[in-house]
Amino acid sequence: MSNIITVSREFGSGGREVGKRLADELGYAYYDREILEEIAKETNMSEWYVENVLEKGVPRSTVLHFGRSFSYYSPVTQQAINLLVAERNVIKVLAAKGDCVIVGRGANTVLTEEHSFNIFVYADMESKVARCRARASEDEKLTDKELEKKIKQIDSARAKSQEMVANFKWGDKRGYHLCVNTSGMSIKQMIPALAAYAKQWLEG
Amino acid sequence: MSNIITVSREFGSGGREVGKRLADELGYAYYDREILEEIAKETNMSEWYVENVLEKGVPRSTVLHFGRSFSYYSPVTQQAINLLVAERNVIKVLAAKGDCVIVGRGANTVLTEEHSFNIFVYADMESKVARCRARASEDEKLTDKELEKKIKQIDSARAKSQEMVANFKWGDKRGYHLCVNTSGMSIKQMIPALAAYAKQWLEG
Repeated sequence: MSNIITVSREFGSGGREVGKRLADELGYAYYDREILEEIAKETNMSEWYVENVLEKGVPRSTVLHFGRSFSYYSPVTQQAINLLVAERNVIKVLAAKGDCVIVGRGANTVLTEEHSFNIFVYADMESKVARCRARASEDEKLTDKELEKKIKQIDSARAKSQEMVANFKWGDKRGYHLCVNTSGMSIKQMIPALAAYAKQWLEG
Repeated sequence: MSNIITVSREFGSGGREVGKRLADELGYAYYDREILEEIAKETNMSEWYVENVLEKGVPRSTVLHFGRSFSYYSPVTQQAINLLVAERNVIKVLAAKGDCVIVGRGANTVLTEEHSFNIFVYADMESKVARCRARASEDEKLTDKELEKKIKQIDSARAKSQEMVANFKWGDKRGYHLCVNTSGMSIKQMIPALAAYAKQWLEG
């Protein structure tokens, strides 16, 4: 069985950096935007559109009927469900290919049978705003207040999109094997120990 | 400044084992019951009594008035406050002595200025019941249901005793630097990586 690490993260916490560096350190494949690209290719839709639909999620009312064959879905809802199914398939296929790190896309909730090591990366708001600011392009002149609002909005969408598929809420530590607080931390320095922990967990 | 690791934990999650093994691995002092012993010595009370009062905590209504010099406290409440103050002092003194691991007693909420590395150890209920069962003495013939109830009661008391002193609720990942899920895990095997992570965080 492949060694699979999933990284879920709060926006601005440096979760993508954690995932990328872990993959480099361990010599694992790294998947992030690749999943959207693959879904877009398979469904003949644009990556942007796929991302947008997946981020909005399936309306909550649908959840209650999910799986009941007699329910009626609007075409929009049906498309969201199709994309969710495509996303799950792509994640399963990638995970079966070999050792890898998958960032985002609720991979932890998809790979329940693959014995994946699931990390959640988080940080305090001050650190997240600072991190967003540091990586923002020149034309993004958001104030701290605006950045904070953006962070909250993105995280709330992430939480919502996990709502219908998981046993635990997004960010609830019980849904992960390790929760890493990156506040005021140099991620690079922590990678060797983090990689050792993940590898031990996966192979121990 | 000393290197200080605090370990908070759900009952039955193996947090004490994590703390003890981390201290051994890093060559740090280890404090757990020692804190109660010290408070008992200083206050001339029995260790059992001290533990009991500290576990019950200070009545919530007191919290609202905490620090107002004109408030009236019952002798019982006053004693609880005195013991809490003694506990904080003992923890501060121990932390100042040198590198150490402190398990429980809300040390993470006391050592806010000491740059301590704060770990929270948790596990799913099944693992906690199994761990309790494995270490239970022969005369403890609790059923799984009873054990589960005991675990919940102890954790709820731990949560309550932190309520008045901390910014975050007990177990809220934002109050810790690393949250470790020990479900189905061999703690012993994870210690070298965990110790490396803690040391890097403290000295990096």
